Amino acid sequence: MSMRYFEDFAVGDTQDLGEATVSAAEIVAFGRQFDPQPFHVDEERASASPFGGLIASGWHTASLAMRLVVDHYVSRVASLASPGVDELRWPTPVRPGDSLRLRTTILETRRSRTKPDRGLVRTRAELLNQHDQTVLSLVAMNLIRLRNP
Amino acid sequence: MSMRYFEDFAVGDTQDLGEATVSAAEIVAFGRQFDPQPFHVDEERASASPFGGLIASGWHTASLAMRLVVDHYVSRVASLASPGVDELRWPTPVRPGDSLRLRTTILETRRSRTKPDRGLVRTRAELLNQHDQTVLSLVAMNLIRLRNP
Repeated sequence: MSMRYFEDFAVGDTQDLGEATVSAAEIVAFGRQFDPQPFHVDEERASASPFGGLIASGWHTASLAMRLVVDHYVSRVASLASPGVDELRWPTPVRPGDSLRLRTTILETRRSRTKPDRGLVRTRAELLNQHDQTVLSLVAMNLIRLRNP
Repeated sequence: MSMRYFEDFAVGDTQDLGEATVSAAEIVAFGRQFDPQPFHVDEERASASPFGGLIASGWHTASLAMRLVVDHYVSRVASLASPGVDELRWPTPVRPGDSLRLRTTILETRRSRTKPDRGLVRTRAELLNQHDQTVLSLVAMNLIRLRNP
């Protein structure tokens, strides 16, 4: 697959970017380190919680999505930087054994007014589980180099 | 410290919530698992990158902030859920040895129209390094129980 430049992104384009699975042990390990709330780290207390079982920290879910981005996107795109992320949501919890896939949809492309070698691409990224439920949704901004500035 | 309810939050209130440090080994371990870009996992290639050295994955930085929230905030607040996060930004990179502290500022409080036992609190969270530079900024939404519904 050849390198993609700003000119290669069009509003409405969608792309599926690989799959990841997550185990109970991984959920608990991440939870112990960064988000030790009972429903992330303790199977028994998680079962008694409103979630009815272990669920992944939302930051673990976001990190799993990032791994798919790095493995399947970053090296193929002339990306310069990401100014940030908007509208980060976790509509459905991630549970042990879930299989997650990333879908991206281009929302906006805009050439930079001040730096003619680049443009801003706004992308909606959604992480879906094996039941087609959205477990994470966000809008990413990326500065991407032009092929022909 | 007693439990804080919706009525205890006022726009403009600020609070400092603990400190965390991060080592090169932790930056690399997180990067290898979730964000294996050269400037997160490889000291030598990081030195040759525009960052001039290892920097933490933005999701690592966010996870470190979450740990401070869990250790110093969650257990003291009658929080019901978080619908999500807006305006996630990483203005300055996190580097090995950095000492990070979390500052929160209440932006908005609003009682729920449909569920009279709770209200929405919008909070700006900023993670600052030892040079008072902002390494992470976000706006969190939290549903918080009323003391006297």
